[in-house]
Amino acid sequence: MSTIPDSEYEQRIKRIQAEMGPRDIDLLVGYGSECEPHHIRYVSDFKPTFDFAGFMIPREGEAALITGGPESIAYARDNSRLKKILIHPFFLETSAPPYHETEHIRFSDIIPKVVGELSHIKKVGIVGSNIFPHEIYMDLKKAVADAQLLEADDILFKVRMIKSPNELAAMKKAYKITEECIKATLDYAEPGKMEWQLEAKARATMVMLGAEGPAYPIWVCSGPRTNQGLSRSTDRKIREGELVQLSIGIRYQGYCGNMCRPFVIGDIPQNARRLMEAGLEAENEAIEAMGPGVESIGVQRVFSDVLKRHGFGREFTLYGPAHGTGLQECEGPWINEENLFELQPGMVFNVDIWLSDGEIGLRWEDGVAITGSGVEQLSTYRREIISK
Amino acid sequence: MSTIPDSEYEQRIKRIQAEMGPRDIDLLVGYGSECEPHHIRYVSDFKPTFDFAGFMIPREGEAALITGGPESIAYARDNSRLKKILIHPFFLETSAPPYHETEHIRFSDIIPKVVGELSHIKKVGIVGSNIFPHEIYMDLKKAVADAQLLEADDILFKVRMIKSPNELAAMKKAYKITEECIKATLDYAEPGKMEWQLEAKARATMVMLGAEGPAYPIWVCSGPRTNQGLSRSTDRKIREGELVQLSIGIRYQGYCGNMCRPFVIGDIPQNARRLMEAGLEAENEAIEAMGPGVESIGVQRVFSDVLKRHGFGREFTLYGPAHGTGLQECEGPWINEENLFELQPGMVFNVDIWLSDGEIGLRWEDGVAITGSGVEQLSTYRREIISK
Repeated sequence: MSTIPDSEYEQRIKRIQAEMGPRDIDLLVGYGSECEPHHIRYVSDFKPTFDFAGFMIPREGEAALITGGPESIAYARDNSRLKKILIHPFFLETSAPPYHETEHIRFSDIIPKVVGELSHIKKVGIVGSNIFPHEIYMDLKKAVADAQLLEADDILFKVRMIKSPNELAAMKKAYKITEECIKATLDYAEPGKMEWQLEAKARATMVMLGAEGPAYPIWVCSGPRTNQGLSRSTDRKIREGELVQLSIGIRYQGYCGNMCRPFVIGDIPQNARRLMEAGLEAENEAIEAMGPGVESIGVQRVFSDVLKRHGFGREFTLYGPAHGTGLQECEGPWINEENLFELQPGMVFNVDIWLSDGEIGLRWEDGVAITGSGVEQLSTYRREIISK
Repeated sequence: MSTIPDSEYEQRIKRIQAEMGPRDIDLLVGYGSECEPHHIRYVSDFKPTFDFAGFMIPREGEAALITGGPESIAYARDNSRLKKILIHPFFLETSAPPYHETEHIRFSDIIPKVVGELSHIKKVGIVGSNIFPHEIYMDLKKAVADAQLLEADDILFKVRMIKSPNELAAMKKAYKITEECIKATLDYAEPGKMEWQLEAKARATMVMLGAEGPAYPIWVCSGPRTNQGLSRSTDRKIREGELVQLSIGIRYQGYCGNMCRPFVIGDIPQNARRLMEAGLEAENEAIEAMGPGVESIGVQRVFSDVLKRHGFGREFTLYGPAHGTGLQECEGPWINEENLFELQPGMVFNVDIWLSDGEIGLRWEDGVAITGSGVEQLSTYRREIISK
């Protein structure tokens, strides 16, 4: 359970509302699911389960949580920091059991419970716009027929970008558990064990230490399968003398920790060593370059310079050296060639070095918080060339 | 990794296509995510990770998997049974790293790779319609401007409803692992342990036995919190003499097993015993009433008669006695008062008895497969009044 007090959730709503004013947005409507809960958890701490969830935030006054049906009501009352809880049947779980007492409810019924008069709404901001279901969008549009609907994800991401001390405390704990998982998994690894068994060891370790579960569908891949930037563990047996990739992240009180480590059992083949050394140096130098007031492009340049020095151009990687992290393992801002910004205290990044020679690949990843005077590294365990 | 052969995936596509013909649907477009992967896994075995996924199935010929960007390509090539893999950038993960080489791609570019001429398409069926994102819908509509778009989820659910022998084998294994998790969790339970620790024990057990993870965000709730039909484990300590609810499901090769058990440590209070006995009898009699050729309403009546006998009317429960299960823990068909159908061999149900007296609640749940001659119970472990 979250140790962040109700007062901080109230502050979050106020910070969001402060961003709505200058943009003339009268109402924010957010949407989330079991696998995309981040905005919902940020405003309410509610964790969508089976039913989908949403929120409505008026420019002033009390915000509301939206859930799909009667089955979620007692749960939401117990768990949501937003105490106004409204039902919209389009947020019901996919199998949609029939609840006749609520099936008629539409946005035209519930918006007035948050903003008063429907006709006062001129602009509605959509949050979670890349996953916002068409059916829900159409019902919203019908309810506010004269209003403009626009994407407003950036408001939430802006407010979420700077972590509070309470959020940082949760994230530090998340990375601590992640380090324990990496340790347990490395200790457990031996030739003949299957990729999924290593993943299982990490999963078993994280939950017994208090994690809610993995931060994303984590994986272990090995040999030629390491060339998959995203992957899934299989029953392939790991072997001596070949690359094994651990991509292990955990979720604690909603917040993510994540670490990626490549390793080899026994002697490291030359092609693997070349990638491991280049990636490790890129990660270390990128972290070295980070700090408050630093321009993001400077970090990007350090990263690409290291890779070039090792003979790896842009085509050997997928993206820049780091991305924000928090309630979602991978969230903005991205550090890359295009997205220019200044690193600020309270930002938390995963330095994330993906590198592939076309045949095998690897990822180094660790958490770094920007502080007032430098950085705090949230995970460092065995950031080294690992031969077990 | 799935042990279901490629040939069965080919058959699935053919069965889907056979349903498209009579309805004049030229193209099915499906959408899924990490938490709603069911349709995607059914047609391709691909497990969406970070990026969202989709499929396109033409009325004849080869179907295609859709993924969001370059990061998923090597993974999809290795894991998808559909070998035609297309990128649409609207399926990228929420943090959307910029991939300039693919960002211009739209449905108007990729549909012709599946159906030939865009102008030949008169009807497009949407699968995953309750979660189908507005942005993706609008791009699809633009590509097939003259075509009708309609919901076609029922085609997939109809084809998925009857499980093959290979699917049944995976599900039997899923329930076996679930039984082991219930056993381990009951053994582990003692006064003073927190709800989340019991959940953690179940999670740790399932993954070491080969489960991919939980079938849904599983939970343990206790005392007054048992009145939540859906819930989430907290740091509440379980105590002697009060109800504890285990809701534990696992996923094996994509397929779900699920069991729910209420129990009490020590003496069972009268209000808990009354609910436990009524729910247990309702479950047992509902299972007794099931079999091939049985009308669903008969099972519903047995269930509501038992509850009435114990003094519980419709208002003490949420829905009927059972729902289909498979690649989604809760999928159609529902057995209830309205949805009338005949139970057929190959259908698999979770008999799911939720009961609440307004102060505490419980759920009994077990898997039941309909066979040619009766039923096969997929989980039975400690389906009894449990006082530990």
